[in-house]
Amino acid sequence: MNRLSEFMTKNKLKVEQVLLNAITSLDCPEKLQEAMIYSVKAGGKRIRPLLVMATAQSFDRNPERALEAGAALEMIHTYSLIHDDLPSMDDDDLRRGQPTNHKVFGEAFAILAGDALLTLSFGIIADSVNFTPEEKVKLIGLLAKASGAEGMVGGQAADIEGEEADLTIKELESIHVRKTGRLLEYAVKAGGIISGLDDRELNLLGDYAKHIGLAFQIRDDILDVEGDQNEIGKPVGSDEANKKSTYPALLGMEEAKRKLQYHIEKAHESLQKIHPEPDLLADIADLIASRTS
Amino acid sequence: MNRLSEFMTKNKLKVEQVLLNAITSLDCPEKLQEAMIYSVKAGGKRIRPLLVMATAQSFDRNPERALEAGAALEMIHTYSLIHDDLPSMDDDDLRRGQPTNHKVFGEAFAILAGDALLTLSFGIIADSVNFTPEEKVKLIGLLAKASGAEGMVGGQAADIEGEEADLTIKELESIHVRKTGRLLEYAVKAGGIISGLDDRELNLLGDYAKHIGLAFQIRDDILDVEGDQNEIGKPVGSDEANKKSTYPALLGMEEAKRKLQYHIEKAHESLQKIHPEPDLLADIADLIASRTS
Repeated sequence: MNRLSEFMTKNKLKVEQVLLNAITSLDCPEKLQEAMIYSVKAGGKRIRPLLVMATAQSFDRNPERALEAGAALEMIHTYSLIHDDLPSMDDDDLRRGQPTNHKVFGEAFAILAGDALLTLSFGIIADSVNFTPEEKVKLIGLLAKASGAEGMVGGQAADIEGEEADLTIKELESIHVRKTGRLLEYAVKAGGIISGLDDRELNLLGDYAKHIGLAFQIRDDILDVEGDQNEIGKPVGSDEANKKSTYPALLGMEEAKRKLQYHIEKAHESLQKIHPEPDLLADIADLIASRTS
Repeated sequence: MNRLSEFMTKNKLKVEQVLLNAITSLDCPEKLQEAMIYSVKAGGKRIRPLLVMATAQSFDRNPERALEAGAALEMIHTYSLIHDDLPSMDDDDLRRGQPTNHKVFGEAFAILAGDALLTLSFGIIADSVNFTPEEKVKLIGLLAKASGAEGMVGGQAADIEGEEADLTIKELESIHVRKTGRLLEYAVKAGGIISGLDDRELNLLGDYAKHIGLAFQIRDDILDVEGDQNEIGKPVGSDEANKKSTYPALLGMEEAKRKLQYHIEKAHESLQKIHPEPDLLADIADLIASRTS
């Protein structure tokens, strides 16, 4: 896993620099800018933009050209966390041990900071000097679909509606695909688009993203039962306490683990149909299967 | 004013059809779709998209090609009303005599419906078959700037911060330019971009938009003092009761009316520097100066 972690460490700082530059260069009210910066700085592993860059590295050997396509995605992810934490949504006071955006800046500014980040994500692609107009249009169209009513926002809506209900495994899967899977699909396809891949290859990357997204979620559910509280950073057993629909709850632990392996294998199969096989992406699949936090 | 009102009536329905088609064709949770449709249907005069189309008509004689650039703008306008009405923002229960979005669908769905409309506005431009990739990139870049932290969202933030303060006329003007002016600038420039205008002409259209935007706001403030309650649809004198900073309050009524005329004249001057002079846009400036509702 050395190759991957070296890549991640090196490029994480670059993503964060692009994100901060895009916001600090805005001519806008100070408090709004502070609220945007606060949540962007509170970010975690930057997995999504690094997935864009890892894909670009695999095919194009030029991951830096993908920076703004990744930063746009991280802005979408960040805005969604700000809005999800609001009192009328998940009503969370803390995220990664820090007060949530509305706890610091108030609800009105949290809503506006989210709206501004969402808007900026499309602006940063449109204004980039690193993409052709054709690439920009593909990236923006894909990002809008992945993050809007048919994607992430729709997944959040379905999640809220499903909270009270006993979900089937199919319904649970559909929510996960919308809520997190579509953004991962954007991530690898964006890296593929700017590397000039054809539709067949982009679709294989899309399959890969779907499988690692579901694997990620299953692993998350398993860790909530079997993980180390200190490593995962939240109390073990919180899903059961909150009566959340999870893979282990719906399928049993053994079957959930089998399903995790199935999706990791399927992810590898999709990659093996692409030549040359993108090694960094294969490493990411393995990392997801074995992660402990 | 016959030429203008004929144009408006004819094209209003077309805009509304494009808006509704874009939302009803989404594959997304039903309640989310309903919430989006509710607010789009509650819309008023569709001034913003019609301004896009009137500009395209003036130069290109093909206003229908501009429909999606206008629909995108109306989606932005609609989402901003949904979010502005939220309890943590303006806390309004009614808009145009109808219950506001969160009163019908709850706060969580109102936030999500707004997010989804904002996202779709960029998607509808990216997916359109009516624009070249170069036009799409220009439209999206301009719309992101006009509606984001440097434009509408920033204006809303400044407005919230300024609520308690005694504003100078310069501060008041800066808020109006951000909050409403930049979207009008997008409107005419979008119509100009797809008509193939050059930068000089686009800038003149931008000047025109700035002046009609300020004129519109001054007329609004004047009507709140001198208007007919039945025509404007809200109680006369509400600005004064709410201690809002307005042009008549800051400048006196006579000077406010002089300033209104000044901006209308300036709007006409900008248009006169473009050949052929766009008649529909001149009519719109006159309509703003004399409107009673």
